[in-house]
Amino acid sequence: MAQIRLLNYAQATPRVRAVFDDIMATRGTDYINNIWRALAAHPPLLERFWALMKAVMVKPSLLDPLTKELIYLAVSITNNCEYCINSHIAAARKKGMDDAMLAELTEIVALANAGNRLTSGFQVEVDDVFLPKTRNAAWKAPRRAAKPSRRKRKSWQR
Amino acid sequence: MAQIRLLNYAQATPRVRAVFDDIMATRGTDYINNIWRALAAHPPLLERFWALMKAVMVKPSLLDPLTKELIYLAVSITNNCEYCINSHIAAARKKGMDDAMLAELTEIVALANAGNRLTSGFQVEVDDVFLPKTRNAAWKAPRRAAKPSRRKRKSWQR
Amino acid sequence: MAQIRLLNYAQATPRVRAVFDDIMATRGTDYINNIWRALAAHPPLLERFWALMKAVMVKPSLLDPLTKELIYLAVSITNNCEYCINSHIAAARKKGMDDAMLAELTEIVALANAGNRLTSGFQVEVDDVFLPKTRNAAWKAPRRAAKPSRRKRKSWQR
Amino acid sequence: MAQIRLLNYAQATPRVRAVFDDIMATRGTDYINNIWRALAAHPPLLERFWALMKAVMVKPSLLDPLTKELIYLAVSITNNCEYCINSHIAAARKKGMDDAMLAELTEIVALANAGNRLTSGFQVEVDDVFLPKTRNAAWKAPRRAAKPSRRKRKSWQR
Amino acid sequence: MAQIRLLNYAQATPRVRAVFDDIMATRGTDYINNIWRALAAHPPLLERFWALMKAVMVKPSLLDPLTKELIYLAVSITNNCEYCINSHIAAARKKGMDDAMLAELTEIVALANAGNRLTSGFQVEVDDVFLPKTRNAAWKAPRRAAKPSRRKRKSWQR
Amino acid sequence: MAQIRLLNYAQATPRVRAVFDDIMATRGTDYINNIWRALAAHPPLLERFWALMKAVMVKPSLLDPLTKELIYLAVSITNNCEYCINSHIAAARKKGMDDAMLAELTEIVALANAGNRLTSGFQVEVDDVFLPKTRNAAWKAPRRAAKPSRRKRKSWQR
Repeated sequence: MAQIRLLNYAQATPRVRAVFDDIMATRGTDYINNIWRALAAHPPLLERFWALMKAVMVKPSLLDPLTKELIYLAVSITNNCEYCINSHIAAARKKGMDDAMLAELTEIVALANAGNRLTSGFQVEVDDVFLPKTRNAAWKAPRRAAKPSRRKRKSWQR
Repeated sequence: MAQIRLLNYAQATPRVRAVFDDIMATRGTDYINNIWRALAAHPPLLERFWALMKAVMVKPSLLDPLTKELIYLAVSITNNCEYCINSHIAAARKKGMDDAMLAELTEIVALANAGNRLTSGFQVEVDDVFLPKTRNAAWKAPRRAAKPSRRKRKSWQR
Repeated sequence: MAQIRLLNYAQATPRVRAVFDDIMATRGTDYINNIWRALAAHPPLLERFWALMKAVMVKPSLLDPLTKELIYLAVSITNNCEYCINSHIAAARKKGMDDAMLAELTEIVALANAGNRLTSGFQVEVDDVFLPKTRNAAWKAPRRAAKPSRRKRKSWQR
Repeated sequence: MAQIRLLNYAQATPRVRAVFDDIMATRGTDYINNIWRALAAHPPLLERFWALMKAVMVKPSLLDPLTKELIYLAVSITNNCEYCINSHIAAARKKGMDDAMLAELTEIVALANAGNRLTSGFQVEVDDVFLPKTRNAAWKAPRRAAKPSRRKRKSWQR
Repeated sequence: MAQIRLLNYAQATPRVRAVFDDIMATRGTDYINNIWRALAAHPPLLERFWALMKAVMVKPSLLDPLTKELIYLAVSITNNCEYCINSHIAAARKKGMDDAMLAELTEIVALANAGNRLTSGFQVEVDDVFLPKTRNAAWKAPRRAAKPSRRKRKSWQR
Repeated sequence: MAQIRLLNYAQATPRVRAVFDDIMATRGTDYINNIWRALAAHPPLLERFWALMKAVMVKPSLLDPLTKELIYLAVSITNNCEYCINSHIAAARKKGMDDAMLAELTEIVALANAGNRLTSGFQVEVDDVFLPKTRNAAWKAPRRAAKPSRRKRKSWQR
C-alpha cells in the first residue's frame, strides 16, 4: 500500500491539475493511474517525471511506440518491479502486444539475464573487435571561457 | 581476464567444432567471439546456450531481429554487463542500430530504471485496471495419470 | 496475479501434455506448479525451459541435487524473486534442507551481498594472485573454412 | 572505452555549448567530465539529463548537498557502477566527505544489501504497524472533463 | 508469508530474550518487528545481525541517524525490498523524515539509477581526474611471521 | 584502482595487525588480499567484517566449506562483482572446485537468473502448496517489561 496519499482530481491544486489534464489529454483517457497520483503529492517531481516520460516515451522518435514499451518492460522485468510490469504490460497491449509477443519478450529477457551471468561467471574479456577503434582526445577547455561570473548565476547555483 | 581457457578451433574436439561451425555458418563469418570459446571448455553447456541463442535470437519470430537485440541490450545495460553491452552493441549495429538509436535506447533504459524506483520508493499499489479480470482455476491432475512407472525413466531421473 | 492464463491438463494440447507428463513423471507427482502452466501458453518456450531445467537441475552431475537447489535459491534471494524463493525453498526441503540450513544459506547470501558492496564502494582492484597466469591467444579461423554455402542453411538462418 | 564519441568544446554546436557552459558555470570549473561529453552526441538527451541533475542535485532543497551525494553514491555502489562510483566519490569529497565517511557510507550500504536479503530469504511479511493506516479512494475522473479534442494536441501526441 | 516461524517472547530461550530485551531497550519500545522474530529461530544469526545493526546504525558516528536511515532506504528502494522499504520508512519518519523528504530521497534514487545506466549504456570510461593519483604498493608479508602453529588454532579453523 | 589506501603490515597499528595476524593464521598463509588492506583504513569495519566472514564462512557448520564458497560465488556472479568473483573463484579452487564445477555452477546461476525473469514477466502467483500452512501470531510484549531505564544504557544508545 502506498506510503504517501494518492491525490484525487477534486483535491488537486491547479498546478497538479495541469499535469493531470495533460496526461489525460495525451493519452485520450479520463483515468489517472496510481503512480501519477502518488507523485502529485510533490508537484515539481510530478512535473519533471511526466515531462520526461512524455518526451521519451510519447513523442515520436526513431523507435516506434511499441518497441519503446517493450524496452521499458524488459527493464522492469529484470528489476522485478511489480507495479511497472503490470502497468507497462497494459500500455504495451494497447500498442499491439499480444500474449505471444509478451512470451517472446520475456524469453529474451530471461536469456539475456542468463547470458549476462555466463560471461560474468567466467570473467570473459571483451573481444577487441567489439571495442571502438579510436581513443577519445582529452577534454580541452574553451579558449576564453573566462571564469564564470558569480553575479550571473542564480543564488542557489554553486 | 577469463578464468577458463578460451579454446581455439585447432584444439577443439569434433563436438565443439560442430557448434563453432554452426555459429560461423549461421552468422556468415569465420570469427568466434570469446564467450563461445569460453563455453567450449564445457561442450554440453556450449551446445545448450547456443541452441537457445539460435532459437530465441536468430530464428525468425514475431519480433524483428533488431528489436530483439535492443531488448537484449536493455537488459545488459540494466545489469551493467560489460561483455554483453559491447558485444550486443556490435550485433545491434550490424542489424541497423546507429548512434542515435543507441542513445534513444539508453535513455529509455535509464528512464525505466528511474520509474521502477519511483513506484518502489512510494510503494505504489498496482491499479485494479492493470490486473487480469479472472482468477485462474486450481490445477486439476489428469484423470488416469497412473503413477509413472520407474522402469520407463532414464536412470538419472528422479 | 498471472498476466497470462494458467493452462490446465484438460485444456492442454498433446504437445503441452507431453511436457506436463514428463514433468510429473520426472518428479513423481501429479501436480504441475504455476510457472509451467503459464509457460504452457507458449509451447516452444515451455519445451525449452523444461529441457534446460531437467538437463541442469535434475540430471546427475558433479554437484549433488541439494547443492544445486541452494545455489538456485541463493540467486533467487539476491534477485528478490518471490515465486522462485517460495518454490525453490519447497524443492530444497524435499531434498533435505531444514530451517537451520535455510538460515545458514540466507546468512551467506546476505554476507556475499554485503561483501560485494564493500569491494565496490572502495573500488578495490583484483589481486594479481587471483588472475589467470597466461593470456589467451587470439582466435584463429579454421584453415579451409570455405564460405558457408547458403543452400545448406535453413531459410530462417542468417 | 566509450561506444560513442566524446565531444570536445571546439567541435560542439551552439546548442551543446550552451549546456557545457551552464555545467561549467554551475560548477565553477572549466572541466567537463566524460559522461556529459558522451551525452553531447545527442543534444536533447544532454539537455534533459543535465536539467534533471541540476534541479535534483544542485538546486537547494530539504536535503543538504553532501547528503544528496551520499545517497547517489549508495545507489551507485549497490548497482556496482564504476563510472558513477568514481565520479560521485570525487563530487562527495568536494562537498566534505573524507575517507572515514566513505567507509561509514560503504558499511551502511553493505549492511542494507545484507538486510534486504535476510528478509527476502525468509519471506518475512511486513508488520502491520509499518503500513499506512487508511486505504486510498479510487480515482474519480473530473466532472466535465470533456473528451480531449484531437485538434488541440500536437501531431505527435497520441 | 514468512517461511520460518516468527518467535514470540513467551516462547523464546534466554539467549533470544537477551537480544529481544536489548532491541527493546535500545529502541525504547516493547515491540519487536517481524525480521527479528524470524532471525530468532537461529540465535547466532540473530545475535550477529543485531550486533551489526546496532554498531552501524544506532551507535553515534560521523553521519547523523537520519542520514544513515536515508542511505539504508536508498539501497532498499534500489533493490525493491518491500519489507525493508516499509520498515525503514517508519524508522526514518521517527528520526524526522516527512513526506517531502521521502519524495526528495526517492527522486535522487531514481536519478542515480538512471544515471548509472546512461554511463553503462555508452560504456563511458572513468575520467583520469577521478582516479587516485598513486598506485598502491604490493603486499609485503611481515618479517618474522613464522608459519602459524596449528596447535594455537581452534579445531575448526583452517 | 582503490579509492582508499591499501595498508601494508609495516604501517599497520597493533589493532589492525591483530586482525591481519588472525587472517593469516586462520588461512595458513602470509598473504593478505586487497579487500582486507582496504578495510584496514577503518579498523572497526575491518574487525566487524572479518569476524562475520570467519563466523559464517570459516567456522564449521551444516554446509561444507566448498558449498559455502559456491553460494558466495553464485551471489557475486549475479551481482557482477569482479573483485568477489575472482577472489572467491580462487578460494573455491583451494577447497576443491575445478573448471567443470565452475561451469556447472555458472550454468545454474544463469538458469536461475533466467527463471527469475520468466516468473516475473508473467507475474506468476505463488502456488498455495509452497506457502506456509499456518499464520504467525502477532507479537505479544513481555508482561513486566518495565520501561527500560535510560540509566542502564550507554550514552550513545537511543
